[in-house]
Amino acid sequence: MSTPEQTVVAAALAEDAPWGDVTSEALLPASATADAQLVAREGGVLAGAAAARAAFAQAADLTGGRVELLELAADGTRFAAGDVLGRVRGSARAVLRAERVALNLLQHLSGIATLTAQFVDAVAGTGARVVDTRKTTPGLRALERAAVRAGGGSNHRWSLSDAVLVKDNHLAVLLAAGTDVTSALRGVRERVPHTTRIEVEVDRLEQLEAVLAADVDVVLLDNLSPADLAEGVRTVRARSRALVEASGGVSLATVAEVARTGVDLISVGALTQNARTLDLGLDTTVGARP
Amino acid sequence: MSTPEQTVVAAALAEDAPWGDVTSEALLPASATADAQLVAREGGVLAGAAAARAAFAQAADLTGGRVELLELAADGTRFAAGDVLGRVRGSARAVLRAERVALNLLQHLSGIATLTAQFVDAVAGTGARVVDTRKTTPGLRALERAAVRAGGGSNHRWSLSDAVLVKDNHLAVLLAAGTDVTSALRGVRERVPHTTRIEVEVDRLEQLEAVLAADVDVVLLDNLSPADLAEGVRTVRARSRALVEASGGVSLATVAEVARTGVDLISVGALTQNARTLDLGLDTTVGARP
Amino acid sequence: MSTPEQTVVAAALAEDAPWGDVTSEALLPASATADAQLVAREGGVLAGAAAARAAFAQAADLTGGRVELLELAADGTRFAAGDVLGRVRGSARAVLRAERVALNLLQHLSGIATLTAQFVDAVAGTGARVVDTRKTTPGLRALERAAVRAGGGSNHRWSLSDAVLVKDNHLAVLLAAGTDVTSALRGVRERVPHTTRIEVEVDRLEQLEAVLAADVDVVLLDNLSPADLAEGVRTVRARSRALVEASGGVSLATVAEVARTGVDLISVGALTQNARTLDLGLDTTVGARP
Amino acid sequence: MSTPEQTVVAAALAEDAPWGDVTSEALLPASATADAQLVAREGGVLAGAAAARAAFAQAADLTGGRVELLELAADGTRFAAGDVLGRVRGSARAVLRAERVALNLLQHLSGIATLTAQFVDAVAGTGARVVDTRKTTPGLRALERAAVRAGGGSNHRWSLSDAVLVKDNHLAVLLAAGTDVTSALRGVRERVPHTTRIEVEVDRLEQLEAVLAADVDVVLLDNLSPADLAEGVRTVRARSRALVEASGGVSLATVAEVARTGVDLISVGALTQNARTLDLGLDTTVGARP
Amino acid sequence: MSTPEQTVVAAALAEDAPWGDVTSEALLPASATADAQLVAREGGVLAGAAAARAAFAQAADLTGGRVELLELAADGTRFAAGDVLGRVRGSARAVLRAERVALNLLQHLSGIATLTAQFVDAVAGTGARVVDTRKTTPGLRALERAAVRAGGGSNHRWSLSDAVLVKDNHLAVLLAAGTDVTSALRGVRERVPHTTRIEVEVDRLEQLEAVLAADVDVVLLDNLSPADLAEGVRTVRARSRALVEASGGVSLATVAEVARTGVDLISVGALTQNARTLDLGLDTTVGARP
Amino acid sequence: MSTPEQTVVAAALAEDAPWGDVTSEALLPASATADAQLVAREGGVLAGAAAARAAFAQAADLTGGRVELLELAADGTRFAAGDVLGRVRGSARAVLRAERVALNLLQHLSGIATLTAQFVDAVAGTGARVVDTRKTTPGLRALERAAVRAGGGSNHRWSLSDAVLVKDNHLAVLLAAGTDVTSALRGVRERVPHTTRIEVEVDRLEQLEAVLAADVDVVLLDNLSPADLAEGVRTVRARSRALVEASGGVSLATVAEVARTGVDLISVGALTQNARTLDLGLDTTVGARP
Repeated sequence: MSTPEQTVVAAALAEDAPWGDVTSEALLPASATADAQLVAREGGVLAGAAAARAAFAQAADLTGGRVELLELAADGTRFAAGDVLGRVRGSARAVLRAERVALNLLQHLSGIATLTAQFVDAVAGTGARVVDTRKTTPGLRALERAAVRAGGGSNHRWSLSDAVLVKDNHLAVLLAAGTDVTSALRGVRERVPHTTRIEVEVDRLEQLEAVLAADVDVVLLDNLSPADLAEGVRTVRARSRALVEASGGVSLATVAEVARTGVDLISVGALTQNARTLDLGLDTTVGARP
Repeated sequence: MSTPEQTVVAAALAEDAPWGDVTSEALLPASATADAQLVAREGGVLAGAAAARAAFAQAADLTGGRVELLELAADGTRFAAGDVLGRVRGSARAVLRAERVALNLLQHLSGIATLTAQFVDAVAGTGARVVDTRKTTPGLRALERAAVRAGGGSNHRWSLSDAVLVKDNHLAVLLAAGTDVTSALRGVRERVPHTTRIEVEVDRLEQLEAVLAADVDVVLLDNLSPADLAEGVRTVRARSRALVEASGGVSLATVAEVARTGVDLISVGALTQNARTLDLGLDTTVGARP
Repeated sequence: MSTPEQTVVAAALAEDAPWGDVTSEALLPASATADAQLVAREGGVLAGAAAARAAFAQAADLTGGRVELLELAADGTRFAAGDVLGRVRGSARAVLRAERVALNLLQHLSGIATLTAQFVDAVAGTGARVVDTRKTTPGLRALERAAVRAGGGSNHRWSLSDAVLVKDNHLAVLLAAGTDVTSALRGVRERVPHTTRIEVEVDRLEQLEAVLAADVDVVLLDNLSPADLAEGVRTVRARSRALVEASGGVSLATVAEVARTGVDLISVGALTQNARTLDLGLDTTVGARP
Repeated sequence: MSTPEQTVVAAALAEDAPWGDVTSEALLPASATADAQLVAREGGVLAGAAAARAAFAQAADLTGGRVELLELAADGTRFAAGDVLGRVRGSARAVLRAERVALNLLQHLSGIATLTAQFVDAVAGTGARVVDTRKTTPGLRALERAAVRAGGGSNHRWSLSDAVLVKDNHLAVLLAAGTDVTSALRGVRERVPHTTRIEVEVDRLEQLEAVLAADVDVVLLDNLSPADLAEGVRTVRARSRALVEASGGVSLATVAEVARTGVDLISVGALTQNARTLDLGLDTTVGARP
Repeated sequence: MSTPEQTVVAAALAEDAPWGDVTSEALLPASATADAQLVAREGGVLAGAAAARAAFAQAADLTGGRVELLELAADGTRFAAGDVLGRVRGSARAVLRAERVALNLLQHLSGIATLTAQFVDAVAGTGARVVDTRKTTPGLRALERAAVRAGGGSNHRWSLSDAVLVKDNHLAVLLAAGTDVTSALRGVRERVPHTTRIEVEVDRLEQLEAVLAADVDVVLLDNLSPADLAEGVRTVRARSRALVEASGGVSLATVAEVARTGVDLISVGALTQNARTLDLGLDTTVGARP
Repeated sequence: MSTPEQTVVAAALAEDAPWGDVTSEALLPASATADAQLVAREGGVLAGAAAARAAFAQAADLTGGRVELLELAADGTRFAAGDVLGRVRGSARAVLRAERVALNLLQHLSGIATLTAQFVDAVAGTGARVVDTRKTTPGLRALERAAVRAGGGSNHRWSLSDAVLVKDNHLAVLLAAGTDVTSALRGVRERVPHTTRIEVEVDRLEQLEAVLAADVDVVLLDNLSPADLAEGVRTVRARSRALVEASGGVSLATVAEVARTGVDLISVGALTQNARTLDLGLDTTVGARP
């Protein structure tokens, strides 16, 4: 069995060299060595250390070389441009084989961690947690969720399977079928494991009452103005112990205002959808001998 | 055997609902139907149609429902905000199961196609082709390359396996070992299939002569100024039939100037690394009956 | 992508005939047909219909035959000895190839559904739900959980990943490290998704206070006497909205007494660990022609 | 390539924690250690040692911890309630991750070994061997067959592929097509590898003559009374060197009487279908430091 | 679940076009059609029909085209040079994608069937069966065994798992340990399923007595002269019902003489190791339209 | 991730012993050891060393034994009958488990290397390279290509994906559609990556002009007489820098004459299609103790 990082890296190495690195095999002796430093070309927060580790280890196995990971900063490390974040030494063929896969993952995941940290910093002191969404890159959810945590954020449900999130579409069917929302939500409680939380999306404040009557765990206030959010929080606090989550196009510019409405959680699709790739490089010196 | 799109979608659906959609199963009758329109919330170029198709088809199989794909614009379609790009109708459980996976892929890939189209438009009339790099998301290379083509761009080599690209690190080893560049490159020619092109990266114009003497197929001028690029192009044209590729931090702001130096190809890592997710939505109406 | 039933059946068919059914291939013409009835040799509750369906469908594909599933009772159907629960007709080679795999699954899963129904019947009227545990057969968890539902039971958490369940071992470490239970549990709340429920196991009633102070979602009273259970329920109800689950060697003989203590949930490892295989048979008539 | 035990365990660990153990990760420091003893809570015969070994080894890899297997009794060990059967020490996260998977397999497989030993003991001195059937749990056949051997039993054919077993359904087709049994069975001999044994099921003694005339390797007397079994044995011994197997609802109460009829083999579906899970526990002490 | 042919073909298509057929995609419109005839360029016996069928079906799925298999001779068909063995019509991209994979398998497998038929013809009338060995191409055993049957040969054991074959090396250990051969072989009988045949290799006739005393199922006379084979057959017939197999460098030139010694089986490694690829071609007419 | 050799060997070991080696397990104590020498029974060139290495390593893991690879000649080693090419020592069960798989691969791949070396020797001094084709055994392409290199040959394109090879069928469609060859080929250049070489098959010399006008990388002269080949070479050299490849039924008898026409490359399907399995053996001494 493999960790998520090992699985992603194995697929990436296969994709990036289905039948080997023709250039290195044609040019570099098997004995050639490389010494490489992972250098930050801009500041940020690191994520993807386990993936990078897996990339060098697997590339060593594949090429029959040996690679030593001399150091590697931990996920969550904050760094400035120019900082050295890690260093590997070993077979040149192995290092060059791993390089692009390791960088692609480090840059992508550190971009997510860095953006998350900016959102988290923006809400500091408000008590609100910044959480991710299911808007992740197919195949990379486990790694992107870890990157969000590395940036100081929290994770939302993992998938459609591990928590109930009732959206407007679900409610529309119930209402059309003549079921009232409260009893429909109570019915859900009967049908899912008692270990499953139930969250309900509310688009208009007048929907709140029926939802709260059903004793749900979390209320998601979607696309409401700050004023409505604040009123929603007051309503929920008055009648229920439910958590309040805000969502809907939250940006770095608006997140602090949202946080100040008193919500417990702010979910931000942009964390995983619109993080910029962070500029990290591998400065490599290749030598003819060990 | 599966197409790349089918493989990516199968993994994404498993990741997004390892044991089903607990909400829909607890709330929606199996007979509930959905009618959904894919709507552009901003303008752009479409990519990912095959992936979306696969998502709805596989979700139907998994849920035992039936989904009809009524229409779907082809990859490469240019659209404006508000345009309807597709429509599906069928089992509500199946449509909701596929929704996030289909959107995650359509938004990500259309973002790449749209950014590519901007680069391609910027070099219109110069004869230069905009090409991608190996800076792709692990697991999604086939789909991202198709998105680049949908945006009017061209693809670089697929992987380390299908073309030789000699970089500074490779040459450093050769020089350290006392081999001259020209004969080293001729040696590569002997060791790779005759169907393999050889491209060599050149960082300083004085390296060009030795490289051209080896009769390579493509010269990659990396991180040169426009003036140096233009001089490099003249040198190559004078002595060789090799293609000239420019690379190195090319942006929308600079790509036209680079193209006007006369290079044949401009490779742009940003196409796949920094494309913004495009805002597409699925407007869904769920009904209690067929 | 495949459903859990399809995945299990594919593995089972491969295991049961790695290179075909040598007997049928040597004896039966490809055109031979079979007509088979699924008959209950004892009363019970059905589970495994989707698996049986998959077995016949896949065996048909593998043998190049055709099989028609004429009828099949739904999961949850209660039946008496002698009842006909389903009927298939088609290629004899396909039916015989599927037979053992279909029966092994139907018998095993219906055994679980039947035992679950006995537990559920025993607590009727008390308001307590009977739930399963992680004591499932490796590889069959999804199917066994569905069988529990078919028998009228409810499911506990799916796995270690989707809900927190703090046991004595976890608490022992905290206490040894000088952390008090209440603040330790509050720390958990910070570190897991807000969609995750937290359940805490309590072996002695004096532990309850510290646990309830942490505002947990479910309290698990493990191995307590009925009197202690009843007192535990009273304590929880007085101070918290947490659900109360009882566990620990609950049998058909004792479950009603446990239920009458007022607990919300009773988890029973025996549902999946000690259910007797139910006696179902496939009465098959093989014919030389279609 | 993996052993069957490693394959089963990898699937089980994935199923039991698709994205990690949220409780241990939220509560236990990575440095926390555990010392665990495998204790028999009732007497029996051990099976599943290789699976348990694989569970701890793989959990260590997955969690990045280290686990030392200090001792583990071998398959086939007979033990009494209270006996210590094994001991592991190492990372608490790893031990808790492996615990349920290891126990589920040890309990299930030791249950089979224990029941098998009871059957084997019951026929001691008769010369009859107790054998299993294809009524195994999908996915676990290799492990359950090993458990039968651990209990002193023997294995029947592995699958439909490695031996011919002609049943009443097969013969019905032949007779309907006007083929006589003897020549049909001789035809089978021509069509299967010469390394394949042929066994034929006989439900009524008058069928024996035609079967023996075909020189088969094993005769299966199905659902006959002890008197008929004894007569069947005499008939076979008189005319043939074929082995005689008895089958059909054999229980612990009846197996000795069946064995005394002189049959060579008694196949018992109950060994793998109705073995009770054996009560084994892991007594674990978790500590805050190594 | 897939048939062996489908599995082999899927891997072969992936290997032969990891990211599509760049030539056809760049040159042929998706609507282009092909009409192709499978033509024998030399005489022989066909094998591989199921694999060819799978190749065209899967290529159609992969390319999104449609291919109709108009006719295809069955495995075992004898043909002369110039005979048309099959015909497909449909999408040109799909036909060209499948072509090489289908031909590689048809040519390889028909080569085996053709050579087998030559051996079988050479022993006609002697009563000896020609059988294959484990000297098959890794990954293709199921298909090569079917090709041997298509040529009129028989199969030996499938693998190390489904029959006992005791060789000189095994006996050497026993003798070194002071065990006599007869009792060692009887011990094997106790330890393997009663459905498993036991074959013993004998290199010198003086070993026969001890082997026959153990009541084995098959005696393998390895590398003996025709005279010794004949004597071996007489010895076996006199004391046992065991089958006699001859092996060891049997060629088309010598097989008849070996068969006339009276052995039951002649195993020939050359069937699968040294069959010449048969010359079959696909005469394809590509058209611009349907 | 695994190397191609590891992947092939894992599948082969599973195929050759789906549930273990029943003979060795029943006869040999786990402590029995083996000492085996790889001996050439005829002269040739070695290929498959990595596969053999993988076979012994994986068999050791599977059986729980230990195997030491004392020596193994490298791919490309030329040897005479009687030469010892390698030696392993270790667990008898592991060595016997690996034996057939290792030999099947070594014999098959060394046969290819040996035949290739004969072709290469035959063209020595002419400057022509001998290259393989896509006529490889499904699943073994990577290993067979390495064997061709071990024999001194060169590889052609890997697959349909990594180079363009325009054949008569492709051109027929274009001509039928009224497109002229030169502009069609220039269109291909626009549609494939600039790293992709374009080769065009020419069956008649009069086609050459239009092809050369399109500036292709390689011209494939198919099935031409030596005289026509020589003329073709002259024509190409006069107008182009394209390489010239000859193909079509080239044999050991004719290859030298083809080479003397001045072509750069000669592709020979027979290298992988009709190489004779080389006779290599494993002389094994099994002992009762370490």
